[in-house]
Amino acid sequence: MWRMLSTSFTEMFGLDVPVAGAPMAGVSGGRLAAAVSAGGGLGMIGVGNTTTAQAIRAEAEVARHGGDPFGIGLMAWALPANPAQFDATLEASPTLVSLSFGDLMPWALRFREAGFRVAMQAGHVEEARAAADQGVDVIVARGREGGGHGLDAVGTLPLLQGVLDAVRVPVLAAGGIVTARGLAAVLAAGAAGAWVGTAFLASPEAANTAAARARILATTETETSYGRVFDVAQRIPWPPEYGGRALTNEFSRRWSGREDELAGDQDAQAELAAARKAGDYDTAYLYAGQGVGLVTEERSASEIVAGLGAGAERLLQAWA
Amino acid sequence: MWRMLSTSFTEMFGLDVPVAGAPMAGVSGGRLAAAVSAGGGLGMIGVGNTTTAQAIRAEAEVARHGGDPFGIGLMAWALPANPAQFDATLEASPTLVSLSFGDLMPWALRFREAGFRVAMQAGHVEEARAAADQGVDVIVARGREGGGHGLDAVGTLPLLQGVLDAVRVPVLAAGGIVTARGLAAVLAAGAAGAWVGTAFLASPEAANTAAARARILATTETETSYGRVFDVAQRIPWPPEYGGRALTNEFSRRWSGREDELAGDQDAQAELAAARKAGDYDTAYLYAGQGVGLVTEERSASEIVAGLGAGAERLLQAWA
Repeated sequence: MWRMLSTSFTEMFGLDVPVAGAPMAGVSGGRLAAAVSAGGGLGMIGVGNTTTAQAIRAEAEVARHGGDPFGIGLMAWALPANPAQFDATLEASPTLVSLSFGDLMPWALRFREAGFRVAMQAGHVEEARAAADQGVDVIVARGREGGGHGLDAVGTLPLLQGVLDAVRVPVLAAGGIVTARGLAAVLAAGAAGAWVGTAFLASPEAANTAAARARILATTETETSYGRVFDVAQRIPWPPEYGGRALTNEFSRRWSGREDELAGDQDAQAELAAARKAGDYDTAYLYAGQGVGLVTEERSASEIVAGLGAGAERLLQAWA
Repeated sequence: MWRMLSTSFTEMFGLDVPVAGAPMAGVSGGRLAAAVSAGGGLGMIGVGNTTTAQAIRAEAEVARHGGDPFGIGLMAWALPANPAQFDATLEASPTLVSLSFGDLMPWALRFREAGFRVAMQAGHVEEARAAADQGVDVIVARGREGGGHGLDAVGTLPLLQGVLDAVRVPVLAAGGIVTARGLAAVLAAGAAGAWVGTAFLASPEAANTAAARARILATTETETSYGRVFDVAQRIPWPPEYGGRALTNEFSRRWSGREDELAGDQDAQAELAAARKAGDYDTAYLYAGQGVGLVTEERSASEIVAGLGAGAERLLQAWA
């Protein structure tokens, strides 16, 4: 029905809808990846810094049962300490490997040498140009309004214009794309597709909780904030240039600007751990982008992807 | 040629290109407004907090000589202390009055009662909804990547999706739209047009200096920053929620985070005043959005507008 939305990205992976599901660590498991792929996009499994090889194998198994292609997204800074993630990803044989955060290039080369297609995330034009020069297959141009971790640099719209002028590789736009209007926008600009995360946070296939989904649905576009509070509290050794965007809550308000003090506060660390276990999101984090204000109902990821495709097709055809 | 780009905004004002020139105080004089209008858009004159009635009359005279419609943009917080700005604007009889920053509604009502069309700026969905409820003619949905003053709230792309779903009034997208890719994007999303400022900062019709234009051309998308440093240093009584986005320079780096100290520093005030006079932009400010990285050549504003229209038409037709 929306086959008119053919791009270099849909052709590369045989997709119906030019949408990739962002590999959100802890949320994008095999079930979400399979649902995104079933809707016509390319679902991705998110690998976090402590994800085991076993977990990667298990989630890939779930995704594979869907019968559609899927990808796996890795965090480059975490790989040296977790080389088993590399091996388990090779073994899982994903259609696309995405690399973000840190020294991406050595890993990109290794995956490419092993015959895999590789996507790399860029937060400004120079990063995109460097990735393109190295022969990456797909560039994800991620604006600062996006959820989870990334550079707090450039908004999606100016970033996308710059990256598209700078490189010839297929570019996916990331950050703030939740509805068909957003997908139509980035396609009209010349993107090969959208990289969508926040839109799936209230989907039953997401590996989160009912309480988390309820919070997501209740949050507006002005109620997220970017920072390092949750990483500092948990002693996660993220490179300092990568903070995360999460729902603003009591804990982030309390500690924002006091990260040095937080780093030495064992009570706060314990409080956060307990809150995560209890699903208390006044303290525990929920990563989400500014598009969270557009997530207003619990809906299956397959339906969301299909709706994005159909809606973007309508919007673009209106200009014909 | 690009008459296909017909929207509620072009129809309302009889334009060829769905672009309004942002009323940048100190930069958007009558000459720039006339050039934007000559290119097929709607040029706007920017009124700052200290702009005199006489200056408004003079700039309007220049704009009127172009023979095309033009608008005037006012800052609501500055009007109570400068009621002559209101009277001079009425007298100049602009096609569109835009209101930003502060308690807009009373002024919007006065202009509407006097028979004028009014645009109001919104930085989040609730502001847009409130403006629409009051019967404003045009809403400018301004993302945080935009240059000059505004809320540091939501990126243009997620903001635009939310505002378009929330209101039925024509919406112009503002913040980071510099090239035809950006215009095509916001039109595909459903905007009635784009509100463009930074794109004109290296145009000969802008009321700035050759040195300023050279700086603009040399700056990338990551070299702007948002804050209140320049307003604090100059003792300009902006409401605190409105900072400005300017090129990052030695002065803003030095004082960012030390605004309280800066407020009492007379040497810094004098240094900034002297630098402004001398055109020393290591110290003096140049307001610009993150789209500044896309401004790579000195070009007339008329050409820029015509090129935006032609380019956006090509991009949208590619999806037909």
